Amino acid sequence: MKPKAVVLLSGGLDSVTTLALAREQGFACHALSLDYGQRHDAELAAAKRIAQRAGVEHKIVPIGLDAIGGSALTDSAIAVPDHASEGIPITYVPARNTVFLALALGWAEVLGAWDIFIGVNAVDYSGYPDCRPEYIAAFERLAQLATKGGVEGGAFHIHTPLIAMSKAEIIRTGLRLGVDYAGTVSCYSADAEGRACGVCDACRLRADGFRAAGVADPTRYRAAGTG
Amino acid sequence: MKPKAVVLLSGGLDSVTTLALAREQGFACHALSLDYGQRHDAELAAAKRIAQRAGVEHKIVPIGLDAIGGSALTDSAIAVPDHASEGIPITYVPARNTVFLALALGWAEVLGAWDIFIGVNAVDYSGYPDCRPEYIAAFERLAQLATKGGVEGGAFHIHTPLIAMSKAEIIRTGLRLGVDYAGTVSCYSADAEGRACGVCDACRLRADGFRAAGVADPTRYRAAGTG
Repeated sequence: MKPKAVVLLSGGLDSVTTLALAREQGFACHALSLDYGQRHDAELAAAKRIAQRAGVEHKIVPIGLDAIGGSALTDSAIAVPDHASEGIPITYVPARNTVFLALALGWAEVLGAWDIFIGVNAVDYSGYPDCRPEYIAAFERLAQLATKGGVEGGAFHIHTPLIAMSKAEIIRTGLRLGVDYAGTVSCYSADAEGRACGVCDACRLRADGFRAAGVADPTRYRAAGTG
Repeated sequence: MKPKAVVLLSGGLDSVTTLALAREQGFACHALSLDYGQRHDAELAAAKRIAQRAGVEHKIVPIGLDAIGGSALTDSAIAVPDHASEGIPITYVPARNTVFLALALGWAEVLGAWDIFIGVNAVDYSGYPDCRPEYIAAFERLAQLATKGGVEGGAFHIHTPLIAMSKAEIIRTGLRLGVDYAGTVSCYSADAEGRACGVCDACRLRADGFRAAGVADPTRYRAAGTG
């Protein structure tokens, strides 16, 4: 029997590639998406389609991060910037990956899984503190102490296969594994149909990645000026 | 100006005492309750009343832990036991305190608070892995690495003032600080009016605590056989 893994699946380019890598590594994957008051539902709809196509169990857990605010991604009073910025960007959602990994850990305990995959990346998003290897290592230590299984001697592993890859390497890896990137949504301000704005940080990184990978960008952009 | 603190407030005896201690220590408190698919809303209603009476800001954040299941407290298919058990009890909610502390950390970042209070107790609930001092220490280390503030050099403190107290000591502490325990709900199976069953683990620990403290138990119990 294949070992089980919980894979955090946002519906964006990185998480879809992570799911493909987890399956390639022989895990029976259980995909977890968080409905955290994102500005748009297109990302979750993409996650749902991707999980269905992969034939993996998929749960969408609602969580009211919008009640806490503090980020352009969850607080509609804060604008998503259309240009690169210095330091930790305003799109950083406070403690987001800690909340996501905690929920993945809870589900892993219920499933009897010891492996959790998260598509964090320390190269392109180095501004996010909770995407760094030292953060992931600290969460792995916490998981041992936090859980029934850890106390009883089992070992949790937090897999971050993308952490040191460039966007172009991620895209090349996904294409090798047959990922259809046209169905993924990375844009912070996608419209209801999942069409991208083309100007936010996430769109810029993604477009640069396709360019650097030397492949055509399959992203569906909305017409300029319709944002 | 008083330093700010986020206090996790379930509405039970322990969290209310924790809030009173945080206020006594001079913190401007912001109370956080999680609506995680508990079997009853009486605990949240109690938290709301307590925060109002104390005049502190209060947020209730919804989080779908019931989608994950695995505990008698969130899964209606699992019965709440009416007798003590060996080992980690079935009322343990997988990764619950990790999820709760992660959300408290997110709100602390938004508020600019460096202090988080949680009423965990390692004496009575030694069966819960995420109530032990080594777990709390690991979360404190994680918080440093997880956050913008931690990366910039600030230090988070997770306060657990009850961790080594017996239930009787907690009750005596609360009474000294003027806590009205009649308004708190600890029972795992309280009815809609917040009346306790008197037989679950939480009820037994609470009743024993009042007995050991030598004070009258103000808990409102429902009549036997009406559970």
